[in-house]
Amino acid sequence: MTGTLYGLGIGPGDPELLTLKAVRILNEVPVLAWPAPLEGDGMARGIAAAHIPPGRIEIAIRMGFTVDRAGTEAAYDRAATEIARHLEAGRDVAVLCEGDPFFFGSFIYLFARLSNRFPVEIVPGVSSIMAAGAALQAPLCAWDDGVAIIPATRSESEIEALLSASDAAAIMKVGRHLPKVRAVLERLGLWDKARIIERVGLPGQRIFHPGAVTELPYFSIILVHRRGQAWL
Amino acid sequence: MTGTLYGLGIGPGDPELLTLKAVRILNEVPVLAWPAPLEGDGMARGIAAAHIPPGRIEIAIRMGFTVDRAGTEAAYDRAATEIARHLEAGRDVAVLCEGDPFFFGSFIYLFARLSNRFPVEIVPGVSSIMAAGAALQAPLCAWDDGVAIIPATRSESEIEALLSASDAAAIMKVGRHLPKVRAVLERLGLWDKARIIERVGLPGQRIFHPGAVTELPYFSIILVHRRGQAWL
Repeated sequence: MTGTLYGLGIGPGDPELLTLKAVRILNEVPVLAWPAPLEGDGMARGIAAAHIPPGRIEIAIRMGFTVDRAGTEAAYDRAATEIARHLEAGRDVAVLCEGDPFFFGSFIYLFARLSNRFPVEIVPGVSSIMAAGAALQAPLCAWDDGVAIIPATRSESEIEALLSASDAAAIMKVGRHLPKVRAVLERLGLWDKARIIERVGLPGQRIFHPGAVTELPYFSIILVHRRGQAWL
Repeated sequence: MTGTLYGLGIGPGDPELLTLKAVRILNEVPVLAWPAPLEGDGMARGIAAAHIPPGRIEIAIRMGFTVDRAGTEAAYDRAATEIARHLEAGRDVAVLCEGDPFFFGSFIYLFARLSNRFPVEIVPGVSSIMAAGAALQAPLCAWDDGVAIIPATRSESEIEALLSASDAAAIMKVGRHLPKVRAVLERLGLWDKARIIERVGLPGQRIFHPGAVTELPYFSIILVHRRGQAWL
């Protein structure tokens, strides 16, 4: 009997936003893996720390913040090999995933490498876009709104096409792309309606008024709705 | 001191997908409100039932499934009046919300009526689209994908515009709109890549192959990705 690979959504940052199921699995599996920077524990382990019992085997999947595609692939190849050894020995392995494992989650790299050989179970988690709406007290969408989720890395014309086709949007990982994102939102008359938050659910969370923002870190989200605050 | 109004995300259906925070608040607040059909407890209370302590004051917000806009507004007016009475008396009130309160949640009707008079706290929850990806073992999106969330009630041209601008999509509440949705997906060469699920996380959950589906209930979701199963 091989072990089961769990993609474990641990939510956007607040340790109280883990699900009961995620906490149960953390208490049942013998092996945990988590993405991490080159040194230290990283964000995912920090979120789950209070719920990790002592004595677990832990695998750090280490990667620099600006690593290239080849480096990323090599890091996940190594992690998949190490995880596979435990699964082959019949030990369940849970991979800690910030937010939801299948919503822009780096777990997908391991899923692509291991799901053809081992049973996989995904435990969905609270996404940062839901946490952003909650923290901003701004409904993301209602009724029959069309919604776009847009990584700010996309080109100006791609961002504009998605915004133009939707009623509401969440623009993720704004960071250094703020001038481009702002230009599109201003052209569409949406900048004044933007709700802006950085580090949602994490220490140092901050909310900005569109008139007061000059730069944003990587972990920042802009929510925008055509109807502004007329939610319904 | 007035009470606090909680919009309490309770996730997509599995009682184990409540967050620790939602369970804590269910144990702390004296008054609960939940959307319900004309008779019986309804889905939201059913999901949270195992975590509701005895002795709570409970308010059923009753509504027929096909009620019109005026009837909806009147039902929420009545519920807001009843909830406001408890908040004015200093009692906290938690409104049970399937999925996430601010992601197509009916809680937004109460938020619009009460947030200018009482403190509100939103507890984000796991959305049905995240649960659909988990159950289908289908990553919703990765990398810098643009994502569209599309209510199937929208017109064929609106659905096509959103799908054309995005890499991945979740089409919600398909039900009787299946022929229209299918026509658009076939025209865009995406139907064969569709992943289809009904009643995700609820009793009677079923998964369909695109070749085998002829009709779907209201609570059904189609996930589709341009890259098919080449997730990354």
